[in-house]
Amino acid sequence: MKLDKNLKILIVGLGLMGGSYARGLSKKGFSVKAIDINEESIEFAKKNKIIEDGFTYADEDALKESDIIIFALYPHVFLDWVKTNQHLFKSGAILTDVTGVKTCVVYDIQKILREDVEFISAHPMAGREVYGVENSDEKIFKDANYIIVPTDDNSANAIEVCKAIGQTLDFARISSLPPKAHDEMIGFVSQLTHCIAICLMTCSNSEHLVDYTGDSFRDLTRIARINENMWSELFLLNKDVLLSQMDKFRKEFDVFYDILEKGDEEIIKEKMRQSTARRELFNK
Amino acid sequence: MKLDKNLKILIVGLGLMGGSYARGLSKKGFSVKAIDINEESIEFAKKNKIIEDGFTYADEDALKESDIIIFALYPHVFLDWVKTNQHLFKSGAILTDVTGVKTCVVYDIQKILREDVEFISAHPMAGREVYGVENSDEKIFKDANYIIVPTDDNSANAIEVCKAIGQTLDFARISSLPPKAHDEMIGFVSQLTHCIAICLMTCSNSEHLVDYTGDSFRDLTRIARINENMWSELFLLNKDVLLSQMDKFRKEFDVFYDILEKGDEEIIKEKMRQSTARRELFNK
Repeated sequence: MKLDKNLKILIVGLGLMGGSYARGLSKKGFSVKAIDINEESIEFAKKNKIIEDGFTYADEDALKESDIIIFALYPHVFLDWVKTNQHLFKSGAILTDVTGVKTCVVYDIQKILREDVEFISAHPMAGREVYGVENSDEKIFKDANYIIVPTDDNSANAIEVCKAIGQTLDFARISSLPPKAHDEMIGFVSQLTHCIAICLMTCSNSEHLVDYTGDSFRDLTRIARINENMWSELFLLNKDVLLSQMDKFRKEFDVFYDILEKGDEEIIKEKMRQSTARRELFNK
Repeated sequence: MKLDKNLKILIVGLGLMGGSYARGLSKKGFSVKAIDINEESIEFAKKNKIIEDGFTYADEDALKESDIIIFALYPHVFLDWVKTNQHLFKSGAILTDVTGVKTCVVYDIQKILREDVEFISAHPMAGREVYGVENSDEKIFKDANYIIVPTDDNSANAIEVCKAIGQTLDFARISSLPPKAHDEMIGFVSQLTHCIAICLMTCSNSEHLVDYTGDSFRDLTRIARINENMWSELFLLNKDVLLSQMDKFRKEFDVFYDILEKGDEEIIKEKMRQSTARRELFNK
């Protein structure tokens, strides 16, 4: 299979991410349909030409004609949905997803999947602090990373198609990581940072400080506005990794506390020099 | 005294902050001179019309004619500089500063100061991750907070003049806090956040993650690029407050670790709802 505009694309789960995929692919000339249990989401998307057609149930015709199915569901419903409806998939179809954790999802899906279809996982590292197709926007991909997460069971062709989807959506960077390495990376750069932001907001009532906060505080807590249903699920599905990342961070935080308490100016400066040098590498 | 363009302004310490003050005040039509031990800074500022004139020493004429003196020095040299040179201050002059911590500075200065001049402290909560007058820019004040930090010894007139300086520099918000409340606030919203950003960069070597980091990680670590000489001094001058803020944060972080370890989804969600609700208040 080669990604071209004759292929029919189906998106299952039309929230912020599914909606943003739909917008991006429709704008590039693809025929995009969608399934979502929320009728308002489907109506909104049809009215705004985000999708060509949509359904609140697993429409047989739509499933049978779709060459590519993109799953943008909560992890806990993803596997069941595939189990229930995979008899309707088109033979040769390629499935992909947007799930934020991988080890606990990818192998399970591949294990139960029909042999004549293929699941290639991907993680678009993009988002907003708002939800729903109403807030979807394909521009969230412009500066973002798109990570293909293949297993040994994936074909070169499926990986190529998955990559082409990322390119079509204009992601800034496309890379590839195995499931375990992906989850470790995400545990550090995304989940740990969200834990920190949450704790900064919950550790004390800072409401009276609203008038005094500068950019630093706002930047560090922006992601403290969080969809609790999705993120609690993602945290728990990656629990062991996240706990170990949290532990690494809190040990270092304890070290910093101790050197400050001792008033050891030279070691404080050394930590700051190290953080400055490392952070320089992340400037783009 | 009323802040008007006939007043002569002197800036002592022409780095990023002193330079940004100089630019802003010069653009508004004030006569601004500066003192800095670095000759290149003075030459750069003169050449770029950031100041009218400048000196690498405590120039007697400049000090004797200045109605307003703005100190943008490191805290540890500020007090000594005033002690050494205050015999040259113009009678009736108003002194102000940009120092990031207050309790340990303000009372000491007021105590040793000549009775015919007045020191009214201020904290412009603005900055950049780069240094020096070469990088100064009055636009850093546009979205920033300007906090006047008066003591019981300050006159209403000096407070008014200090406020007028903040208005002239186009700060977004101007407010007032006593020294102790200021230092507690800054310990939380600024110093604690910098500690967290530093520890995120130093807790593990994340260089191999450069290609995968999204906005969350970049936002949380932007301030990990830090001027170690200035910030180690500010941390140590506000040590007890900062330690207590760090302790509050790490206790909450430990709580979050425990509920995640137990897999208590409902309490995780509750924490996320609380952080979301609190963070909403900080959106502007």
